[in-house]
Amino acid sequence: MRTMVSDDDVNRPERRLGLWFIGARGSVATTATVGALALARGEAPVTGLVTELPEVARAGLPALDTLVVGGHDVSGSMVDRAHELAASGVIPPATVAAVADDLAAVDARVRPGTDGTADRVTVDRLEQDLRDFRAAHHLDDVVVVDVSSTEPPAPEADTVGTLAELESLLDAGTAPLPASSLYAYAAFRAGAPFVGFTPSTGPRTPALEELAKSQHLPWAGRDGKTGETLLKTTLAPMFATRALAVRSWSAFNILGGGDGRTLADPAAAASKTATKAMAVQAILGYPVEGPVRIDHVADMGDWKTAWDHVTFDGFLGTRMRMQVTWEGCDSALAAPLVLDLARLVARAHEAGLCGPLAELGFFFKEPLGGTEHALADQWQTLVRWCAGLAAQSAAPSAAPSAATPAEPSSDAPDRP
Amino acid sequence: MRTMVSDDDVNRPERRLGLWFIGARGSVATTATVGALALARGEAPVTGLVTELPEVARAGLPALDTLVVGGHDVSGSMVDRAHELAASGVIPPATVAAVADDLAAVDARVRPGTDGTADRVTVDRLEQDLRDFRAAHHLDDVVVVDVSSTEPPAPEADTVGTLAELESLLDAGTAPLPASSLYAYAAFRAGAPFVGFTPSTGPRTPALEELAKSQHLPWAGRDGKTGETLLKTTLAPMFATRALAVRSWSAFNILGGGDGRTLADPAAAASKTATKAMAVQAILGYPVEGPVRIDHVADMGDWKTAWDHVTFDGFLGTRMRMQVTWEGCDSALAAPLVLDLARLVARAHEAGLCGPLAELGFFFKEPLGGTEHALADQWQTLVRWCAGLAAQSAAPSAAPSAATPAEPSSDAPDRP
Amino acid sequence: MRTMVSDDDVNRPERRLGLWFIGARGSVATTATVGALALARGEAPVTGLVTELPEVARAGLPALDTLVVGGHDVSGSMVDRAHELAASGVIPPATVAAVADDLAAVDARVRPGTDGTADRVTVDRLEQDLRDFRAAHHLDDVVVVDVSSTEPPAPEADTVGTLAELESLLDAGTAPLPASSLYAYAAFRAGAPFVGFTPSTGPRTPALEELAKSQHLPWAGRDGKTGETLLKTTLAPMFATRALAVRSWSAFNILGGGDGRTLADPAAAASKTATKAMAVQAILGYPVEGPVRIDHVADMGDWKTAWDHVTFDGFLGTRMRMQVTWEGCDSALAAPLVLDLARLVARAHEAGLCGPLAELGFFFKEPLGGTEHALADQWQTLVRWCAGLAAQSAAPSAAPSAATPAEPSSDAPDRP
Amino acid sequence: MRTMVSDDDVNRPERRLGLWFIGARGSVATTATVGALALARGEAPVTGLVTELPEVARAGLPALDTLVVGGHDVSGSMVDRAHELAASGVIPPATVAAVADDLAAVDARVRPGTDGTADRVTVDRLEQDLRDFRAAHHLDDVVVVDVSSTEPPAPEADTVGTLAELESLLDAGTAPLPASSLYAYAAFRAGAPFVGFTPSTGPRTPALEELAKSQHLPWAGRDGKTGETLLKTTLAPMFATRALAVRSWSAFNILGGGDGRTLADPAAAASKTATKAMAVQAILGYPVEGPVRIDHVADMGDWKTAWDHVTFDGFLGTRMRMQVTWEGCDSALAAPLVLDLARLVARAHEAGLCGPLAELGFFFKEPLGGTEHALADQWQTLVRWCAGLAAQSAAPSAAPSAATPAEPSSDAPDRP
Ligand SMILES: NC(=O)c1ccc[n+]([C@@H]2O[C@H](COP(=O)([O-])OP(=O)(O)OC[C@H]3O[C@@H](n4cnc5c(N)ncnc54)[C@H](O)[C@@H]3O)[C@@H](O)[C@H]2O)c1
Ligand SMILES: NC(=O)c1ccc[n+]([C@@H]2O[C@H](COP(=O)([O-])OP(=O)(O)OC[C@H]3O[C@@H](n4cnc5c(N)ncnc54)[C@H](O)[C@@H]3O)[C@@H](O)[C@H]2O)c1
Ligand SMILES: NC(=O)c1ccc[n+]([C@@H]2O[C@H](COP(=O)([O-])OP(=O)(O)OC[C@H]3O[C@@H](n4cnc5c(N)ncnc54)[C@H](O)[C@@H]3O)[C@@H](O)[C@H]2O)c1
Ligand SMILES: NC(=O)c1ccc[n+]([C@@H]2O[C@H](COP(=O)([O-])OP(=O)(O)OC[C@H]3O[C@@H](n4cnc5c(N)ncnc54)[C@H](O)[C@@H]3O)[C@@H](O)[C@H]2O)c1
Ligand code: NA
Ligand code: NA
Repeated sequence: MRTMVSDDDVNRPERRLGLWFIGARGSVATTATVGALALARGEAPVTGLVTELPEVARAGLPALDTLVVGGHDVSGSMVDRAHELAASGVIPPATVAAVADDLAAVDARVRPGTDGTADRVTVDRLEQDLRDFRAAHHLDDVVVVDVSSTEPPAPEADTVGTLAELESLLDAGTAPLPASSLYAYAAFRAGAPFVGFTPSTGPRTPALEELAKSQHLPWAGRDGKTGETLLKTTLAPMFATRALAVRSWSAFNILGGGDGRTLADPAAAASKTATKAMAVQAILGYPVEGPVRIDHVADMGDWKTAWDHVTFDGFLGTRMRMQVTWEGCDSALAAPLVLDLARLVARAHEAGLCGPLAELGFFFKEPLGGTEHALADQWQTLVRWCAGLAAQSAAPSAAPSAATPAEPSSDAPDRP
Repeated sequence: MRTMVSDDDVNRPERRLGLWFIGARGSVATTATVGALALARGEAPVTGLVTELPEVARAGLPALDTLVVGGHDVSGSMVDRAHELAASGVIPPATVAAVADDLAAVDARVRPGTDGTADRVTVDRLEQDLRDFRAAHHLDDVVVVDVSSTEPPAPEADTVGTLAELESLLDAGTAPLPASSLYAYAAFRAGAPFVGFTPSTGPRTPALEELAKSQHLPWAGRDGKTGETLLKTTLAPMFATRALAVRSWSAFNILGGGDGRTLADPAAAASKTATKAMAVQAILGYPVEGPVRIDHVADMGDWKTAWDHVTFDGFLGTRMRMQVTWEGCDSALAAPLVLDLARLVARAHEAGLCGPLAELGFFFKEPLGGTEHALADQWQTLVRWCAGLAAQSAAPSAAPSAATPAEPSSDAPDRP
Repeated sequence: MRTMVSDDDVNRPERRLGLWFIGARGSVATTATVGALALARGEAPVTGLVTELPEVARAGLPALDTLVVGGHDVSGSMVDRAHELAASGVIPPATVAAVADDLAAVDARVRPGTDGTADRVTVDRLEQDLRDFRAAHHLDDVVVVDVSSTEPPAPEADTVGTLAELESLLDAGTAPLPASSLYAYAAFRAGAPFVGFTPSTGPRTPALEELAKSQHLPWAGRDGKTGETLLKTTLAPMFATRALAVRSWSAFNILGGGDGRTLADPAAAASKTATKAMAVQAILGYPVEGPVRIDHVADMGDWKTAWDHVTFDGFLGTRMRMQVTWEGCDSALAAPLVLDLARLVARAHEAGLCGPLAELGFFFKEPLGGTEHALADQWQTLVRWCAGLAAQSAAPSAAPSAATPAEPSSDAPDRP
Repeated sequence: MRTMVSDDDVNRPERRLGLWFIGARGSVATTATVGALALARGEAPVTGLVTELPEVARAGLPALDTLVVGGHDVSGSMVDRAHELAASGVIPPATVAAVADDLAAVDARVRPGTDGTADRVTVDRLEQDLRDFRAAHHLDDVVVVDVSSTEPPAPEADTVGTLAELESLLDAGTAPLPASSLYAYAAFRAGAPFVGFTPSTGPRTPALEELAKSQHLPWAGRDGKTGETLLKTTLAPMFATRALAVRSWSAFNILGGGDGRTLADPAAAASKTATKAMAVQAILGYPVEGPVRIDHVADMGDWKTAWDHVTFDGFLGTRMRMQVTWEGCDSALAAPLVLDLARLVARAHEAGLCGPLAELGFFFKEPLGGTEHALADQWQTLVRWCAGLAAQSAAPSAAPSAATPAEPSSDAPDRP
């Protein structure tokens, strides 16, 4: 059983990181928490953790064994969820047993969230929860990660053009923001970077982007790339670079679990199918017909099966086909990425970066701040970015502005 | 219907290229020839031609419309084969009809090959065929491409340590070379670069590598990457960069046609399954269990179906699975690559490069001269190489040695 | 190439059968017509024709080589459609060429149909077309087969409780009948049996069932079983008889062509997904969750790919899975069944049977008149029924009432 | 959770049945034993038990809750095997825990088997083990079921033409019988019916068939039909009755576990691929090309994935394809059948039947004594046979010879 890279020259154990989940009692957050606790005890392999690959680890990331987890949720129990996940084969029962006490302690830190009352009282409360968490645990940084239920699209959030406008609307209790954006607002006010792992709106509104910038905060999103889109952004470049003409790409997903239940609602699914559909066209450079469907099949539990059917033309127009069936456990795919993102965004914060981190597009269905969808290209970008951060760590006396990572698409750091 | 990039600033119509097929009456050679003839008449789309993508085209490649095709074979008829391919859906019947006269002219140029009599008379005859072809058509260069039936492994070819030894053995009529290596010998003697599109030995012996070098000739190989290996080298990097642990990768292929018949012979199949199996381990960095099988099913005709079944671990050891079914027409996938390779190798020759062209690994199951298997990385390498060649074209007065393409893995050019 | 069973002791060449298609210029009707014409010339194999299997042929069926085809449609051309079908690989181009003149003659017999104007003038016109057809070609019987575009569900047709009511409503021009029911009305008035090969309402209304009975006419339906439902009714009995508990059955279909275009309309698709969903539950005896979807992908042309994903429990609750991908050409699957049904229904008519022919459930997604869905059971029923008809033929002097086929579920014959 | 049919009017609790496994510590035997023990305690559902379906249960079968299990093996431990099976997801851990004591008691009854020493001492010892078992537990009948590792084909066993010859060869210690046949000999001598659940030779030799007959014993075989062949014999009749021409059927299996390890040996696999290949041709009536392969992939554990690829022709020769992926747990599929067979064969014995029981073909890849392969037809045969046995039970005063079940293919009973 491999355990974590524990080379103190690479990780930064001196930095104490807090990880605050929105949707803390959901499958992804619970799996990530159980995993982080098990890893801290040296009782789990690092499989699935991108930040433990040498090309990424060298960026000088916060250690996982000093991570402190908390969060918001509106119902549930992490302990119960962990047992359900063990029963359905997502987490080994022995692992849940081994971390039982630690998990109960995390669960006790979960605070009531909001269902979307967009007023001053609510956002102040959420912000205070974050400030209390940081103070209570003497944390150097807190990263907020949204893994709550996917919301329906909220186009009206874009109508709030400036931060000043948003502040007035919050005072008036009439801000047209969904809950995910209220959490992002609270995070930014509390000085915490934010990761939008769902397709929900989160920080992606003009007013919140302005707030993040004014607070010198980095953020990343959106919608974790774990299943079919991971495959699409791996496979579509093959067709592109071989000059094969893709004629149709049909994609069907069946899944159960909490996420499946949420996405059985067509309004919520609309957010998801939108982020899922864009990747292939973005890579190929031309539109490709074909449905993208997500269907709820309770019996699948936390497991998802995706079937993709692709038709394409070869030389002289010869018709060919490819099919892929992906049988994955979404929570087991997403959980390590969530830990990766917390570490990477905290490192970006420390390095003085702000704005949407395009270099983290590797992790997302809709890479905010950037336009690159091909997985291998995103990987190269990530690796170069980590190399830049490693160089910065190695030259700590250099002014941060001189240590800007290679890729210029993130907003320039403007904090000493 | 897209037709060829005909920008004279990019292509080099002034250079007349000859393309000489070993196995000229097989499916791949016939499809490539029909396609080249149709493209020259502006009657076919460029689908599948990598050299028509802008990133590659800019290298300044010989034009396709002045290409002259000839070759060796031991039986058959290109015209008959073209009709068979049309009947089985590989080539549109209308395209075969449109190029019928031109195709008959190519067929008339096909010379008797050899079944492997490794003596002086044979190799001299093969060499003379190439010299005659070049002279008769006033060609600036001839590229020999081996698309003949896959041979069984021929390990004894490696026992001939030097060119001098080989020459003696040829004089004695006892050279332990398979036919593919005799063709490579003849090509190099005639000053022609060589492409090994099959897994056969071809130029990959110490003596022939020495000959190529002494003749300042580039060559490339081996075994065109068109189906399952294309998929594997596309998908395996996804597992690697996501830190997912691949546990097994089982691969089954069924195919008919001439190639399927050949590979029904376990000796010939051994060459193929060897090149097919190496890619996954090379990319992941650890061995992965699982069979690789090729079975002959006559009913499949020129179509191949490959089924790949992959098991892998995610976070906390959660087991997952992926399956891919690839339903491709091998000849339609291979034919454009063969044209691409002829153009690229001719360009390398013109640029003064010699030895195995590692930068063409994108096209091969077993990339000779290099170790990179991941398709996206190979693509980046190819694109950089083409950029280097473009720069060289743009600065024709520069000494060729100063214009060596970016990647240093090819042997340095040593011809003015 | 096998050709038809031409044993005169079995077929009944002396009976001249007319086959009248509703939707005569569609893919199914055109494929069936081309096939019938080619079979009559001895230029096609009998593949796909159930009525040429000895167990069925012995019923003493009308010969195919004296079949006369005509029909109704609202647009199109059989000749054009045949060329399209040849271009997309459904029918061999040589077959279309061989029957070109005969096909043009059939096309000339196609009369304008109706889009559903439910009045007396319309139904009288349709009825007269059928009478004219029978007279012009000296036909012993005419079978009307509905292969027109699937209609949306028409529940209001059921509100017309009696034939008398229906007659008044037709006189008033306010009958709530969809076009398919108007065609059934006209057929029954003209003394013609009717086959509902689509999920449309057709004869399945109280008033029309009454009319068929009063006319002593047999009919059969509905919705030809050619793809996913064929598979489901083959596979579900395996789970049932092995006591394996099916937990979910998800079914996704992608198809292009005319039928795909029609079913892209959710209203029309509702008819289809309803008939598709019922079979599994009917066989297993308990409800099974899972979506049934039909998506239009224009690039698929006349080809359909269905993907079924089944989860089930074995001993001690062990979870297992099965997936099936079916890549079929709907028209090629449906066309021979349409010819089979015409022959069998004509034979039933001749034998004096009337009402819905439950014994033909083998051919239908929703077997009207019966409840048996398992394909193998339906086959046994069909074979027994044909044996009964064979016995009747063998004893021609017996009164028809004594020759009722074995299965009693059809209404008793009451015609001498 | 459904539990057993406990209707005393149907089951025969008064008959105490012993079940003796050859290969008692293997996966199938262990799973069957754990299941039987859990069922007896009312702690398991009857999923997978064909004998609990009403059509079969009515035959009047021995109850499962008084079943006593014992067996032969050459190594291992049932308790350890049960824990391994629980760890790999084949049996719920809670079920193993619940029956732990009972399972240890069964394990203690397992006696050393033989590796094939074909002499008198060995067969006498095996026979005595069976007699001791029956006496110790006051059993009315003992059924021996072979679920030991598959042996290579043993054609020389057929050279022993008579029982008398066999007896001499056993005395001489030179009988050319594999172990499975020695077990069958011992069983028959001890008056015990035999079930060959593997493809091994077992009782299928002239001498042993003679012995069974002389002892008035029924037997059944061979090779349990649980995966791909189950599918093939379900699907092939669909093609046959729809007159679709199957062109190729390729079948690939990957599996781990003990059985996978055994079948990785080509000699053992030869037995298996032979029984697997015969079904399709038997059903269709013509030969169909295509490979049948079984590959060992250790990572699959006790799970098997089979991929079948079928090509077929429809009307006018249109080419179509079907693929099936079956992801099953072999032990969970086989274990209930083994219990079913023990009950059914005991019932046949009680009813006075002897010889190979063709009516049990439903359970076997190679149905000995019969020629029917289509699963649905085998089911009908089984149901009729059970009806016959039910009628016999209902008329106990009738002489057994009058109560012979409907199907005459078993040898007539000749015991009072
Ligand atoms: N698992 C993956 O692979 C993956 C990939 C990309 C995105 N996502 C997204 O991650 C999210 C979490 O997935 P999951 O499987 O854990 O879902 P889940 O349903 O198990 O958990 C969602 C949690 O969010 C909580 N929640 C709902 N509304 C909330 C609110 N207003 N405030 C705070 N908490 C709230 C719920 O109570 C629940 O505990 C989903 O939006 C999903 O679409 C998951
Ligand atoms: N099609 C693909 O996708 C693909 C990919 C990689 C490699 N390849 C390789 O390309 C080769 C050609 O494939 P194909 O489908 O055209 O096969 P094919 O069987 O249709 O053609 C092979 C031709 O080689 C000729 N030949 C045999 N021995 C010869 C000899 N000694 N000298 C000269 N000619 C000889 C044959 O007569 C035949 O015309 C095969 O080795 C195949 O493995 C093909
Ligand atoms: N092909 C199969 O396997 C299959 C199986 C079951 C049912 N069906 C049903 O058979 C029907 C025909 O399928 P297809 O693929 O030939 O479709 P198609 O779209 O090619 O043909 C339908 C034809 O019906 C004609 N039509 C439309 N409305 C009409 C009207 N009111 N009166 C007369 N004609 C009318 C159209 O003009 C067209 O020519 C569909 O309803 C389909 O659902 C097909
Ligand atoms: N599981 C299925 O679906 C299925 C279906 C058909 C047939 N079978 C056959 O059932 C048999 C058992 O399968 P399994 O998965 O339990 O295999 P397994 O390898 O787990 O068990 C086989 C057992 O047989 C024992 N054995 C070996 N040689 C023996 C001998 N000479 N005498 C007594 N015992 C001996 C081994 O020690 C082992 O305990 C195999 O032959 C398999 O091919 C299984
Ligand atoms: Na080929
Ligand atoms: Na096993």
